[in-house]
Amino acid sequence: MSEHAHAHVPELTPAEAEQLAQDAANAMWSRDHVAQSMAMALDEVRPGFARLSMVIRQDMVNGHAICHGGMLFTLADTAFAYACNSHNHNTVASACHIDFLAPSHLGETLVAEAHERALSGRAGVYDVTVSTAKGKTVALFRGKSARIKGEVTASLVQA
Amino acid sequence: MSEHAHAHVPELTPAEAEQLAQDAANAMWSRDHVAQSMAMALDEVRPGFARLSMVIRQDMVNGHAICHGGMLFTLADTAFAYACNSHNHNTVASACHIDFLAPSHLGETLVAEAHERALSGRAGVYDVTVSTAKGKTVALFRGKSARIKGEVTASLVQA
Amino acid sequence: MSEHAHAHVPELTPAEAEQLAQDAANAMWSRDHVAQSMAMALDEVRPGFARLSMVIRQDMVNGHAICHGGMLFTLADTAFAYACNSHNHNTVASACHIDFLAPSHLGETLVAEAHERALSGRAGVYDVTVSTAKGKTVALFRGKSARIKGEVTASLVQA
Amino acid sequence: MSEHAHAHVPELTPAEAEQLAQDAANAMWSRDHVAQSMAMALDEVRPGFARLSMVIRQDMVNGHAICHGGMLFTLADTAFAYACNSHNHNTVASACHIDFLAPSHLGETLVAEAHERALSGRAGVYDVTVSTAKGKTVALFRGKSARIKGEVTASLVQA
Repeated sequence: MSEHAHAHVPELTPAEAEQLAQDAANAMWSRDHVAQSMAMALDEVRPGFARLSMVIRQDMVNGHAICHGGMLFTLADTAFAYACNSHNHNTVASACHIDFLAPSHLGETLVAEAHERALSGRAGVYDVTVSTAKGKTVALFRGKSARIKGEVTASLVQA
Repeated sequence: MSEHAHAHVPELTPAEAEQLAQDAANAMWSRDHVAQSMAMALDEVRPGFARLSMVIRQDMVNGHAICHGGMLFTLADTAFAYACNSHNHNTVASACHIDFLAPSHLGETLVAEAHERALSGRAGVYDVTVSTAKGKTVALFRGKSARIKGEVTASLVQA
Repeated sequence: MSEHAHAHVPELTPAEAEQLAQDAANAMWSRDHVAQSMAMALDEVRPGFARLSMVIRQDMVNGHAICHGGMLFTLADTAFAYACNSHNHNTVASACHIDFLAPSHLGETLVAEAHERALSGRAGVYDVTVSTAKGKTVALFRGKSARIKGEVTASLVQA
Repeated sequence: MSEHAHAHVPELTPAEAEQLAQDAANAMWSRDHVAQSMAMALDEVRPGFARLSMVIRQDMVNGHAICHGGMLFTLADTAFAYACNSHNHNTVASACHIDFLAPSHLGETLVAEAHERALSGRAGVYDVTVSTAKGKTVALFRGKSARIKGEVTASLVQA
């Protein structure tokens, strides 16, 4: 839903908005200790969108080799963070809701796709779907975002 | 709200229900790789209640030294898990909601307290408050539980 | 997402599944006092989908002529009910979440569209968007459904 | 949790804070068409707290004489509104979550009690329990509030 980005920063061309999303993501990634320690991959980011993936490790599962809900949430929340910061305005989570639908297991790859559903003033709503690489939906996540002061990165695009 | 435990397993004395909650927690802890790798402490468990704590580490914060929402969620979700399995029936999370209220920082101790709010048939609702050791409320979490087949541990109390 | 209907009742052709959804909706409508007293219109129903609309009346607004959140919720919840019962299995709401995004006013027409996001076993997740007739998004709703015993209507399709 | 009121309007005595809550409720009630048309009773209001009740009428139930989820939500949401406006600052709902636990029936009296769980800056969290008069818990509701401009009433207490 890149129209939100345009409404927000109307002076940007689509190519500039895409570059800005990439610049913001790169700046976030360099200081994102959690994503790095969980070996997440940032597969794609665009205005209002992000897709990340990770492999379920031994330290992410319980005794039945099923992925911990907190690890699923953290992956979804990270996709949410990259999507809602993609317009380069510092933005935080104010609330999140997650429905757990099916178990996922040690060694499986999880993919989280975040889509902007609404963005109006300082508040936004983002939906994240967490699936296995084989396409089974594992969890549905909805996050509410709040824009705060400052920019994510001092991008050349905005200069 | 230990009356739920009594309604559920009416043959137990309060002392037996407490022992059962402790036995179930011990069995869960031994296979809980996530709680162990995040160095959580299981401070207290009773029927329908659990309190856990952890210190915010470098690999749990972002570039501004603020604790990642996913790590807060994981602590709250773990307290929820110990509370909702305290009656020794295998129980999983079906949905969770979290409101983020204030930031917490590298080196601070977080405390999560889970209370049973409702338990009827196979579904329960648990409220978790995440605070700093100094008493600042950082997040409010509400989890919906679903009882599945099996017991957490083959407790002597039930034998 | 009519593939869910097929997975659920694999013996139905698409035309039969559509007819079943219509039959179930008709049966529900005849006893739906709330939808009738709020003068809702059931604009469309298909397997896993429903769209309803209503005009905001004087008894649905507060002193500033803004629609009450409970009335928005009730419209969204009704769309959810028609969508999740469209496979003709008796299904109830177990939990709902609503984000309020913008005000709506006396005399405006509201449209609620419910889409099935997931359906697995007895649990489903449905997303409902509430908009004004002019296209402004007023609220986003997510409902969790639980299938219970029985069928909505003794449909000829299933006979 | 009246300490929030004190933190917010530190100059008020407890008696003044109580009077302000009552004045704000009276001003809201006079223009609350929904509460009046549903024949709700405002049983009690204090700083950060409200209790309302209503009898389930024919136009609030479905064909099985079970109360519609939208009517339960509206009662809970109204209790939330009186609680979060009790400090006399104009405050709206930004998001709500409801878990449905047990059915309620035509002719039963429902009681909704709203408690302030957190209030920090412009955002608050309120928990509402909906029960029958006999004490059965029917639904648990959690609302997030956002303070906007203006006061509820030009109270003498603040003058």
